[in-house]
Amino acid sequence: MQYGFGIDIGGTAVKLGLFTQDGALVEKWEIPTRTEEGGAYILPDIAQAVTGCLHRRGIAQCLGIGLGVPGPVSPSGVVNRCVNLGWGVFNIHEVLGKATGLPVKAANDANVAALGECWAGGGQGWENLVLVTLGTGIGGGVVLGGRILYGAHGAAGEIGHLPSNPAETEVCGCGKTGCAEQYGSATGILRLARRYLAETDTPSALRAMDNYSCKDIFTLTQDPGAGAIRERYFDFLGRFLAQVCCVVDPEAVVLGGGVSKAGQALLDGVQAAYRRYAFHASRDTKFALATLGADAGIYGGMKLVLDEFGGTKR
Amino acid sequence: MQYGFGIDIGGTAVKLGLFTQDGALVEKWEIPTRTEEGGAYILPDIAQAVTGCLHRRGIAQCLGIGLGVPGPVSPSGVVNRCVNLGWGVFNIHEVLGKATGLPVKAANDANVAALGECWAGGGQGWENLVLVTLGTGIGGGVVLGGRILYGAHGAAGEIGHLPSNPAETEVCGCGKTGCAEQYGSATGILRLARRYLAETDTPSALRAMDNYSCKDIFTLTQDPGAGAIRERYFDFLGRFLAQVCCVVDPEAVVLGGGVSKAGQALLDGVQAAYRRYAFHASRDTKFALATLGADAGIYGGMKLVLDEFGGTKR
Repeated sequence: MQYGFGIDIGGTAVKLGLFTQDGALVEKWEIPTRTEEGGAYILPDIAQAVTGCLHRRGIAQCLGIGLGVPGPVSPSGVVNRCVNLGWGVFNIHEVLGKATGLPVKAANDANVAALGECWAGGGQGWENLVLVTLGTGIGGGVVLGGRILYGAHGAAGEIGHLPSNPAETEVCGCGKTGCAEQYGSATGILRLARRYLAETDTPSALRAMDNYSCKDIFTLTQDPGAGAIRERYFDFLGRFLAQVCCVVDPEAVVLGGGVSKAGQALLDGVQAAYRRYAFHASRDTKFALATLGADAGIYGGMKLVLDEFGGTKR
Repeated sequence: MQYGFGIDIGGTAVKLGLFTQDGALVEKWEIPTRTEEGGAYILPDIAQAVTGCLHRRGIAQCLGIGLGVPGPVSPSGVVNRCVNLGWGVFNIHEVLGKATGLPVKAANDANVAALGECWAGGGQGWENLVLVTLGTGIGGGVVLGGRILYGAHGAAGEIGHLPSNPAETEVCGCGKTGCAEQYGSATGILRLARRYLAETDTPSALRAMDNYSCKDIFTLTQDPGAGAIRERYFDFLGRFLAQVCCVVDPEAVVLGGGVSKAGQALLDGVQAAYRRYAFHASRDTKFALATLGADAGIYGGMKLVLDEFGGTKR
C-alpha cells in the first residue's frame, strides 16, 4: 500500500491528512501556523509533521504531498505573496521537497478545495465545476476536465475580487473597492442588511438586535426585512455567478463556506436568481452544496498527489 | 502534401480556406449562406464547395474540415440552435462528415476565431488567452493550453452576455437586459454616447451630427465630448475584462472586431482601465490587437483540423 499527504495551510492552523492511494483518509490532524519571522517556520514544521508521521507508522512508500496555499501559486510552484503567512516569492515545490525528500505539488487553497469537492465532495460526478466558498470573503476555484485551472499568474478562480460595484466607497481587503466579496460573503450579507435597513422602513426583528449575524438573517424565515435582505443577497449571488459562468460555462456550481450552512434555502434562492441572469445556453447549470467542509483542502491536496505522482495520470 | 479546410459560417456568407498541413493558406473564397428552409442548404452547399475544390485541384489527401458555427456547439458536435441560420439541434460532425466523407470538427465561431488568433494572429506566443471581438455585438473565446474551452453547454466565452447593468431597460438581442455587449460593442459605444450627450452639456461636434459612428468618436481626438465618451467606454471595457480575467486569469487579452480598428488608442485606454479594476496578481495581463480580421475563423478552423486530425496532437 502506498500513501500520500493532503495539506491545507491556513492563517492559524495547518491541516494535514494522511491518505491511502485509494483515497481513503487514514488520519487527520492540525498543527499551528507559526507566522512569526515572515512565516519561516511553517514549512519546517510541516516537514517535521510529515516525516514524523511516516516514521511513527513505519510507512516506506509515500507518493508525495499535495498542498493548498492561501495565495497565488503558479503551476511550477512559485508562490507569489501570501499576506496572511508573511511569505514573499519563492518556489514551494523546491523548498518543501528538499525538507521532506518527497515530491510536492502546491496550488491556491481555494483551487485545491474545489478539486477536493470535485473528487470526493458535493461536486462528485462532474469534471467541470466552479466552487464558490462563501465565508469571511469569497474564495473560488475552477476545475476543468477534473484538473485545477491555475491561470497565467496563479490567480484563476479569484472571483471574490470580481469588480461588482463601481460606486462602492468602502475598501475591500485587496485594496480595491466594489469587489464581489463585499456583498456576496458572510460579511457581505451583513453589509447588504445594514444598507437595506437604513434605506427602507420594512419592519424587521433585526432592527432591535445589537449584533445580528448571517445566521439570524437566514433563521428569521417569516421576518419581512430579513426576507427582503435574503432576496437581495440571492439576486446578487445569482447575477455574480452568471457573470462567472458565461466565461467558463461549467456543468455545476458548488456552494461552500459558512453561508452554505443555510442549505437548501440558499441553493434554491441563488439558482432562481442565476436563471434570471444566465445566458440561455447555460441556464440549466447545476447547483449543489459542498459537503467536505474544512476537509475539502486535504482531500484536494491528496487528489493533486494522485494526479501528479500517483496512478491516475491521464 | 496533405491539406485541410478551415470554414467559417456567417449569417450572410460562408468563408472557406484551403490550407496545407503546414498551415499555409492556399486559397480562400466565399459562398452565400442560404438561410431559407431552416438553413437546410447550408451544409450541402459547403459539401459541394469542399468536394469541388478537392476534385478541381486533384487533391487526394485531406485531413478534414474545421468549422466555426454562429451558436453553441458541444465538443461532440451537437449544435444547439443557431438563430441566424435557422438551425435547431443536430450533430454537425455527423451530417457534414457524411456529406463530404471527411472528418469534421466544429466549434462556436467566436471560439474558433480565438484559436485562429492564438495560432496565427495577434495572440501568437501565448497559449492562454481571451479573444474579445468588438463588433455589432461582443463575441468571446477562451483558449487554454492552446485549445478551445468549449464549456459544458458549448457556451464558454459567451462574455458578450455577461450581466453588466441590472438597471438597464433596453433589451439585448439575447432577450436579457444589461448585457456587456449593450455597452462594449460598436453599437454599445453609440448607446454610451447618446446617454452621455443627453446627461451633460459638454461641448461636442457630435451634437451637430445626424448619424455619428463609432469611428467618429475615435477620430475626434480633440473633441471634449468624444474624449469623455471614449473614457467611459474604456472604463467599461476595462472593468468588464477584469471581470472575465478574474475567472480564467489568461496570459493575454486580444481585442478584435470593427472597434479594434481604433488600434493603439483603444489598446492603451482599455489596458489602463483594466489595471484599475484587476486583481493584483493579474494586473500585468498583456493586451494585443487581433491581426487576422475576417480570416480568424478560417485559420482557427484549420488549427482545429491539425489538433484533431493532423500531426500536432499533444
